Amino acid sequence: MPDFIRQIPDGDNRERLVCPDCGHINYENPKIVVGTVVVEAGRVLLCRRSINPRRGYWTLPAGFMELGETIEEGAIREAAEEACAEIALEGILGVYSISRIGQVQIMFRGRFADSARTPLFAAGDETLDVGLFAWDDIPWDQIAFPTVRWALDAWRGTGTGVLGAPALNPAEDPRGVGRAVPAA
Amino acid sequence: MPDFIRQIPDGDNRERLVCPDCGHINYENPKIVVGTVVVEAGRVLLCRRSINPRRGYWTLPAGFMELGETIEEGAIREAAEEACAEIALEGILGVYSISRIGQVQIMFRGRFADSARTPLFAAGDETLDVGLFAWDDIPWDQIAFPTVRWALDAWRGTGTGVLGAPALNPAEDPRGVGRAVPAA
Repeated sequence: MPDFIRQIPDGDNRERLVCPDCGHINYENPKIVVGTVVVEAGRVLLCRRSINPRRGYWTLPAGFMELGETIEEGAIREAAEEACAEIALEGILGVYSISRIGQVQIMFRGRFADSARTPLFAAGDETLDVGLFAWDDIPWDQIAFPTVRWALDAWRGTGTGVLGAPALNPAEDPRGVGRAVPAA
Repeated sequence: MPDFIRQIPDGDNRERLVCPDCGHINYENPKIVVGTVVVEAGRVLLCRRSINPRRGYWTLPAGFMELGETIEEGAIREAAEEACAEIALEGILGVYSISRIGQVQIMFRGRFADSARTPLFAAGDETLDVGLFAWDDIPWDQIAFPTVRWALDAWRGTGTGVLGAPALNPAEDPRGVGRAVPAA
């Protein structure tokens, strides 16, 4: 590992990781998570995590966007990887900032693709279990991350209707610094 | 600089930059640009770039999101840095994927803040000139980036009305791979 040092480069206004030998600046920026509330006949697809953090808790199919793909391609890829599901996207439900950990999460509403084979879903490599849940059956006390709850709330606000302006962080956590998973 | 090597880590499915000494993985992910269509009495705030790429061309106040801030804070900061403007955001106009260069651009609609002092704007460090432009006066042949055009189009679609679902990439460039700046 290089011994980068923290200093403010010329013309910049904040500390960066700079290589003392060659001056290369290793910019650190927030990362993008893309995911989907996949809805089938009023029920939503949830995955139970087989990896940490939050192993054993339930989440939406979502993950880090990769270089070279679009946000839509990333969300579709994550559904395939985590839930073996072929999905189609309907639009953006929410865009959330988790400033505490340097993430922006873009959550879509989607459905199983018309071309999807049966079974429609199965547990992927990072998933212990996967299932469709009606609102009242969602395991609210075993939700992995606050943004899962936020996206589900945003979905409940739209149902199958026309998507409006995306939800942003909720009023109680505008900067994404809360650690606790909200209660149901 | 470290001599990272490209290999597929255990449990992964694509090549990463891995340190051969310690196994550290240097994940490369898309970066987020946040910016704003700042509207004042039907005119829009544009900045003429003093830096490359596209020096001398016109853009929206926008730039790379930093660690520790929200998307809203980033967009407000960029307007302050590039246009010396204190702004308030109204919501998201568009979310664009520029897969060719690994960027996601989140563009807001905004206005000058009620608390903003006069002059409402001035050229910042990375800006040669700044001004408010009516639609027909926008220098369409001197626009810096396709996403500037896309965001302006999205603004024209909403005017001052309620924001709907954010615009995504236009049909002619769904993956953000076009190099040419669209004509007016």
